[in-house]
Amino acid sequence: MCGIVGYLGKGQATNFLVEGLSKLEYRGYDSAGVAVLENNSIEIKKHKGRLANLEKDLEENNLNGKIGIGHTRWATHGEPSDVNSHPHRSFKGEIAVVHNGIIENYLELREKLKGEGVEFKSETDTEVIPNLIQHYYEGDLFKAVVKATKELQGSYAIGVISEREPNKLLAVRKDSPLIVGLGEDENFIASDIPAVLNRTRNVYLLDDNEFVLIDENGVKLFNDKGESLSKEIYHVTWNADSAEKGGYDSFMLKEIHEQPKALKDTMSGRVIEGKPITFEDFKLTKEELEGIDRIYIVACGTAYHAGLMGKEAIERLARIPVEVDIASEFRYRNPIVTEKSMLIVLSQSGETADTLAALRDCKRLGAKTLAITNVVGSTISREADSVIYTMAGPEIAVASTKAYTTQVAVMHMIAIYFAELMEKVNIERLNELKSGLLSIPEKVLGVLEDKEKVLDIAKELKDEKDIFFLGRGADFALSLEASLKLKEISYIHSEAYAGGELKHGTIALIEDGTKVVSTLLQRDLIDKMVSNIVEIKSRGAKIYGVSFDDVKKVNEISDKVLTIPEVDDSFAPILAAIHMQLLAYYVASEKGCDIDKPRNLAKSVTVE
Amino acid sequence: MCGIVGYLGKGQATNFLVEGLSKLEYRGYDSAGVAVLENNSIEIKKHKGRLANLEKDLEENNLNGKIGIGHTRWATHGEPSDVNSHPHRSFKGEIAVVHNGIIENYLELREKLKGEGVEFKSETDTEVIPNLIQHYYEGDLFKAVVKATKELQGSYAIGVISEREPNKLLAVRKDSPLIVGLGEDENFIASDIPAVLNRTRNVYLLDDNEFVLIDENGVKLFNDKGESLSKEIYHVTWNADSAEKGGYDSFMLKEIHEQPKALKDTMSGRVIEGKPITFEDFKLTKEELEGIDRIYIVACGTAYHAGLMGKEAIERLARIPVEVDIASEFRYRNPIVTEKSMLIVLSQSGETADTLAALRDCKRLGAKTLAITNVVGSTISREADSVIYTMAGPEIAVASTKAYTTQVAVMHMIAIYFAELMEKVNIERLNELKSGLLSIPEKVLGVLEDKEKVLDIAKELKDEKDIFFLGRGADFALSLEASLKLKEISYIHSEAYAGGELKHGTIALIEDGTKVVSTLLQRDLIDKMVSNIVEIKSRGAKIYGVSFDDVKKVNEISDKVLTIPEVDDSFAPILAAIHMQLLAYYVASEKGCDIDKPRNLAKSVTVE
Repeated sequence: MCGIVGYLGKGQATNFLVEGLSKLEYRGYDSAGVAVLENNSIEIKKHKGRLANLEKDLEENNLNGKIGIGHTRWATHGEPSDVNSHPHRSFKGEIAVVHNGIIENYLELREKLKGEGVEFKSETDTEVIPNLIQHYYEGDLFKAVVKATKELQGSYAIGVISEREPNKLLAVRKDSPLIVGLGEDENFIASDIPAVLNRTRNVYLLDDNEFVLIDENGVKLFNDKGESLSKEIYHVTWNADSAEKGGYDSFMLKEIHEQPKALKDTMSGRVIEGKPITFEDFKLTKEELEGIDRIYIVACGTAYHAGLMGKEAIERLARIPVEVDIASEFRYRNPIVTEKSMLIVLSQSGETADTLAALRDCKRLGAKTLAITNVVGSTISREADSVIYTMAGPEIAVASTKAYTTQVAVMHMIAIYFAELMEKVNIERLNELKSGLLSIPEKVLGVLEDKEKVLDIAKELKDEKDIFFLGRGADFALSLEASLKLKEISYIHSEAYAGGELKHGTIALIEDGTKVVSTLLQRDLIDKMVSNIVEIKSRGAKIYGVSFDDVKKVNEISDKVLTIPEVDDSFAPILAAIHMQLLAYYVASEKGCDIDKPRNLAKSVTVE
Repeated sequence: MCGIVGYLGKGQATNFLVEGLSKLEYRGYDSAGVAVLENNSIEIKKHKGRLANLEKDLEENNLNGKIGIGHTRWATHGEPSDVNSHPHRSFKGEIAVVHNGIIENYLELREKLKGEGVEFKSETDTEVIPNLIQHYYEGDLFKAVVKATKELQGSYAIGVISEREPNKLLAVRKDSPLIVGLGEDENFIASDIPAVLNRTRNVYLLDDNEFVLIDENGVKLFNDKGESLSKEIYHVTWNADSAEKGGYDSFMLKEIHEQPKALKDTMSGRVIEGKPITFEDFKLTKEELEGIDRIYIVACGTAYHAGLMGKEAIERLARIPVEVDIASEFRYRNPIVTEKSMLIVLSQSGETADTLAALRDCKRLGAKTLAITNVVGSTISREADSVIYTMAGPEIAVASTKAYTTQVAVMHMIAIYFAELMEKVNIERLNELKSGLLSIPEKVLGVLEDKEKVLDIAKELKDEKDIFFLGRGADFALSLEASLKLKEISYIHSEAYAGGELKHGTIALIEDGTKVVSTLLQRDLIDKMVSNIVEIKSRGAKIYGVSFDDVKKVNEISDKVLTIPEVDDSFAPILAAIHMQLLAYYVASEKGCDIDKPRNLAKSVTVE
């Protein structure tokens, strides 16, 4: 996830570019850069880190020009650095591009272009784009862009300028957002509406494979056959703040809704039906994996809960012993780590202090280390032997949602990868699991449509002092996360218990009217859970059941029910997690809590 | 722990014996038996199970006689069975004995007596006593008893009758309770006052090594040199109910106070300064232990928390990987169990359904199994390959106290045993650890004297809705148990967190005045804990620190402090557990809760 902007008009391009980027910083803040046509020559300034670094440079040495593009980066390929920052130029220097999205076949394209003498400067996927356009350029920039995009697999919104046609700004999108702002004597492109709201409220909302050509005569739209398109102008009525949140009232709600895309991006290029799972920066041989006698999964908070799902999946499929531990406990308990151990750390930010310390300790002891993080170039991603990124994009809300579900998805991918490598599971089942995984983004969309039911339950929960979450196996791991989410933003003292464990003490807290959210998604364990629920119902508990559509027993014993579409049991908790996130959100919202910035909490914990 | 009674008077002996035993059933109910001198011949009736079985037999075939002894059993050596029930007779049949306590050197004595032609019928330690008396008998029963007891090591309260002197009842105690009841035309011996309260309120409270001789002339007391003693008569003013609880207002409080003895009994004969640790029914060779690649500790509720302490101790000392799991989760997650796995199950009752199921699964998969339980002959103790009993005596209160601390002590003993076997720890340190363990019972007595401070804190906590417990490492395991104890009997929603983990979400629940009990007993981690406490103090939390006397920092950051005497860090949580149990007790007591029978809870959970 990144933000792009573009300008063509009578004003100074950099004025708008910086202003627009500042509104898009929520989309990424690893680096920022602009390219401006100054006297028909492309001049670029780009800097690692926050936009402020670029602004400072421009204040001292501004770029003069009326056409330009800009970018604020959330790194996915290549760590944050000046050289990996956008805009990227073609090898010959004539074409500059900004890009938001992921080019899945970039390695292939890179090899092909290298064969033609192109030299690459950065580690990014993006750099193939200006070179591909250059490759197809035969005197018509528009045609070259159309041809180049036909070769791109993946997602993209791009802005293009060229010294050869220094009066044009081109743009196109596929699976990444892009809008066109229609101003007076100036027009804009941007990833999102807030970037242009200071200048205009009239925009085009582009669809996939729609091309934009802006010149001094105005804005023209085309399809991918080069045919002219007409489009209705959309008049923005909301304010900039709400626009930045995509119309949602909080980043948390926005991020909950971004999960279909985040999950899809996280699997993209890695999980392919009928093919072995692959990761860009994590590869083991069968022998290497067989040499590992135990895996530690270490993390904090929400990521720890994703780790619990990982243990379940890895032990079930690959039969390698896994121990999950809280980082602050793990590092001080002198764990039994050897050269035969593997450490998997999970951290959204890649900067969590205790997790980082655990990683360093294990490296010192000779363990193989793998990081799962959302931030390219973060300390943890740099120090681990290997890294798998969750492609969730920046998570702004303190309460993690899309980082969690993508972490869980990665854990399942690793489990399948290990099982595949060790030949522990037959091919039919492996294919079933891969199809199951790939079906999740679509099914999450379905779950998101059930909001009314969740809101209805939230209204019943909002005045509670104590709420319990109950589940067995992977559902218990989900319950822990559901409970934490509710605590974080609604300040209700909720607690999660393994279904069979409540009666060993904590059942004393169940009294008439106590609310219990009970998850029944592991089909083998549904009967056991039903027995546990009956025990607490007889003490007066009110039951909110979470299960599949077709499990009738759950309806019978529950006061209210939330359901998810049919999916392999293993992945069911990912779908149910959406309900749980929305439940926490609605309870907090009904109580009037500050959802994105809950009391006492910080987004990433870089102290012990 | 067992109960004994004895009668000599003008009435039918069995009338009193059954009545007295019924008042002592809280001391054990594995079997009951009586021996009566009927026409100068000893007649015995004894039955496995509750006293009711014996009563029924006596109703049908009463024993007629005016002198007799009786016993209600809590098995420690030899499973509950008719043959292991008391009274036990000498080989020649002339002498019958009831015994409460443990004869530590019984195997030695047994061998010696066997050498003299004695044949033993039972597996008990007790059976050596009548035979030893028989061995020394030279026409004076009293002298024979004095001589025999000089050879006994361990603890005992015994009652003796003999066909050779059929007008006498003898008794003596050492480290096990015994009283004499002074009636009209009848006198009694008993383990505890409630047994005699229907008959008399005048009693002698015997001290160690005091001998009692009752005949038709009354009661005479002697020291172990045979010199006559005079003793003040104690007049009982309390009622029978309170007497059964030893003067405490609940079994829980009584059992909290029994911990010095329970811990001592649990180490007795197993932990000896300067000698290797031994267990009666659990022995591994170095090779066998080296063949174990991982240990699973599986339990429920409080026993699970004792298991967490076990992991810490075993991994630290013996460096064998240990995984602790909730039984209801473990059994359904298809754990990776092989012939190289060892399973340790913990269950006070030895009947916990999920724990038993886990044991059976693991046996089937070829794992070595060890049970730690408090009930001899329980299903789990019978089915496990080996068993180590906690010698806590019957635990009547639902909230476990002495079973927990003795389980933790056993876990430490196992850890030291493993370390010793595998030569992982040097002898100096091993001796230090053994002395540390052996010092605990005495130090628990010291902690029990700090009740006023605990009560003072309890008064501040009693109206809270939410309380948090915080600790790192073994202190976290203790915090989990402290929290559960409070939940069980006071119905306050408390929750335990690892010191470094709270800030990853749950810190949102901390507001002005939130009460947090913070344990700081791991000296290496005190600074880290202090940082965590400062974080929550700045959000308004009120801190109750639990630490050693000499840790000044804890005083500075705590609103109130509970301290324990100096002891090795490893064992500090056992001492602090006493504070935590008392804290739960006082909070519940201040709230007026039914402490021994909390809402919704049963003593042993024999359903899934």
